[in-house]
Amino acid sequence: MALIVHKYGGTSMGSTERIANVAKRVAKWHRAGHQMVVVPSAMSGETNRLLGLAKELAPAKTTAAYDRELDMIASTGEQVSVGLLSIALQAEGLEAVSFSGWQVPIKTNSAHTKARIESIDDARVRAELANGKVVIITGFQGVDANNNITTLGRGGSDTSAVAVAAAMKADECLIYTDVDGVYTTDPRVVEDARRLTRISFEEMLEMASLGSKVLQIRSVEFAGKYRVPMRVLSSFTPWDIDINEEAKSGTLITFEDEDNMEQAVVSGIAFNRDEAKVSLLGVPDTPGIAFRILGSVADANIDVDMIIQNLSKDGLTDFSFTVHRNDFAKTVDLLKEKVAGELGAKEVTGDAKICKVSVVGIGMRSHAGVASKMFRCLSEEGINIQMISTSEIKISVVIDEKYMELAVRALHRAFDLDQEIAADKV
Amino acid sequence: MALIVHKYGGTSMGSTERIANVAKRVAKWHRAGHQMVVVPSAMSGETNRLLGLAKELAPAKTTAAYDRELDMIASTGEQVSVGLLSIALQAEGLEAVSFSGWQVPIKTNSAHTKARIESIDDARVRAELANGKVVIITGFQGVDANNNITTLGRGGSDTSAVAVAAAMKADECLIYTDVDGVYTTDPRVVEDARRLTRISFEEMLEMASLGSKVLQIRSVEFAGKYRVPMRVLSSFTPWDIDINEEAKSGTLITFEDEDNMEQAVVSGIAFNRDEAKVSLLGVPDTPGIAFRILGSVADANIDVDMIIQNLSKDGLTDFSFTVHRNDFAKTVDLLKEKVAGELGAKEVTGDAKICKVSVVGIGMRSHAGVASKMFRCLSEEGINIQMISTSEIKISVVIDEKYMELAVRALHRAFDLDQEIAADKV
Repeated sequence: MALIVHKYGGTSMGSTERIANVAKRVAKWHRAGHQMVVVPSAMSGETNRLLGLAKELAPAKTTAAYDRELDMIASTGEQVSVGLLSIALQAEGLEAVSFSGWQVPIKTNSAHTKARIESIDDARVRAELANGKVVIITGFQGVDANNNITTLGRGGSDTSAVAVAAAMKADECLIYTDVDGVYTTDPRVVEDARRLTRISFEEMLEMASLGSKVLQIRSVEFAGKYRVPMRVLSSFTPWDIDINEEAKSGTLITFEDEDNMEQAVVSGIAFNRDEAKVSLLGVPDTPGIAFRILGSVADANIDVDMIIQNLSKDGLTDFSFTVHRNDFAKTVDLLKEKVAGELGAKEVTGDAKICKVSVVGIGMRSHAGVASKMFRCLSEEGINIQMISTSEIKISVVIDEKYMELAVRALHRAFDLDQEIAADKV
Repeated sequence: MALIVHKYGGTSMGSTERIANVAKRVAKWHRAGHQMVVVPSAMSGETNRLLGLAKELAPAKTTAAYDRELDMIASTGEQVSVGLLSIALQAEGLEAVSFSGWQVPIKTNSAHTKARIESIDDARVRAELANGKVVIITGFQGVDANNNITTLGRGGSDTSAVAVAAAMKADECLIYTDVDGVYTTDPRVVEDARRLTRISFEEMLEMASLGSKVLQIRSVEFAGKYRVPMRVLSSFTPWDIDINEEAKSGTLITFEDEDNMEQAVVSGIAFNRDEAKVSLLGVPDTPGIAFRILGSVADANIDVDMIIQNLSKDGLTDFSFTVHRNDFAKTVDLLKEKVAGELGAKEVTGDAKICKVSVVGIGMRSHAGVASKMFRCLSEEGINIQMISTSEIKISVVIDEKYMELAVRALHRAFDLDQEIAADKV
């Protein structure tokens, strides 16, 4: 008997008919002898509907008190879901009980609309499991030290599921979604994209942070930190497929050192067109310059992704970074009106029509030549590289947005991602 | 500075536009220097929508576990309302904070879908009021000793509002509804029905229990028990009418001994066509017979309203009672198949096409002749009385359903309810 956590997304919970199917699938797992905890999202569209009502009434200047009320409102979507799923399981003849985040409790900090989980007390959940019940827990939400309802931000139900699995030391956390796993790249861009049967959590982290929307990045961080075995699989397979077949489907997120097998050098190509680049040209290259630039940006609540500073020349340097495209105009204004003058920079430039393309692979740690292969491939396609940034397991480049599909397809082919990996490498 | 509780029904909260108007009205009261607690219902239609989803998934045989999930689901309607109203107040420039029942907490017993309030801890609410905030509290719900969400049953938000007002010793509880007060009878039946400027809580209790749907009966019981001054008024007057005028509008529910004024003998005519009558004829008149009949009925979870047993003749008596029309068939079956045989009754009869018409008035305690006036009036209209039941402040008769409007109009006129009460009697 294993302890299994299932997470179902909003599409899977999108109607009473679909909820009834989720219940049948969970019942199958329960009848196979597993203790089951299920974390469903709100019915698709519901969170948007609720936040839309709030926006119609919002004050011109919103405050922390406003964010608190948003959480009060948005958290109800998942509360309805857990109640409905619990009822659907009862209709399947199982005993089921639902809990809101505060009832578990899932304790978070007080950062409304983007709270972080601090602790989970699993005593009540364990007691109900011991009574033979299926336990349904709201995703996306928790409660702070003052009994205020908090939410974890968009996609937070993934994080809730993994956090519950971690707290309870579950044997596996299965994330049911509307895709059937993690792919070498977006199949809408590259026809030959292949589903990975496994991916290391570090690669998944890079893929998630680079815009592969399969999993919320914090859920992957959680899975890595607490070593929660986690699988992404489809909720649209028939509910009555063989459970052993289902248990092996999708993509397993693994932990490197549990994994002695040879890794493919590169696992996937990720891309992201939500960013814009901004540069301060001709900045005096003195100590503290980076802090003074990014400090001003951070004070304006703008998140920065890539940061690049090159060698200086004649005591001047160029400083570039990327921000979310929605923050582009605000960032350029800030630099022009304030920072550039203070630092004596010569010019502020920027471009919102860029995209970031990344090659991700845990294998590149021990394989040289990935970067040169990547740059050669892009060069052969005549694509100019505007910025480069690297980590241990990924290389990202910023290029003109119009070359995105071309770059992704060429890289996918160059790294043989369209080929099945030889059996001895799987 | 007074502490005022406002309660708004689902129609008043029916759209973001209406919620914005509620906020403007509450803000007016707050700016007049009052501490404000507001208890809104779910947006109109929302509770039905949520329960409809649950019913689509319901198991064939529902249990207490099912009722628990219904409460989990239905309670979200009010949670959305409080968040939205709080935001609308923030948009008005006020500080506002919302609480769910469990956050206050409003403690109830564990009778899901029909829970009863046991205690309210007002410390958190008081602290927020002391900070100058408007506090919005969910109606309709609470939390039991095991942290399960409970609901109070349909119309429960009235009870929540009065209970909060009682716990906090509020100066007045204003129930804003889609009618502008309590009438001498239903204006849809009697054109000349008059709004009462005041009514005793005991009369209101009878009016409510007899089918005047203005207030949930339990809220009136609460108001009586804790002597909460309570006013029913319209939420459809313009929000910016003069606050002193608004404070005197509608109908005030008073407490007899605070009230030295001469009462009108009869305050109103109530009626109810949701009942059916059932009779066991020719029952041996032996001790315990009433218990054996009604015990069986109660065991089948059927609520009984009027109960009548007349003098016996030849050792046999007839025993009649009324039940909700929905329980009529079930009750007749139960009597025929089980009770009649066991008791040796001669016959079981019943009629679902009846209605109950009642004359209510605290003044009849000290005025003789109300009953005879009522019976003469009905007799003059040729209406046969099938059953009679009386309490200290009301007389109810059961008559053929088809005479309902005729009876109500005739009684309304006979007791001069269409006339303004003379000034010395107000």
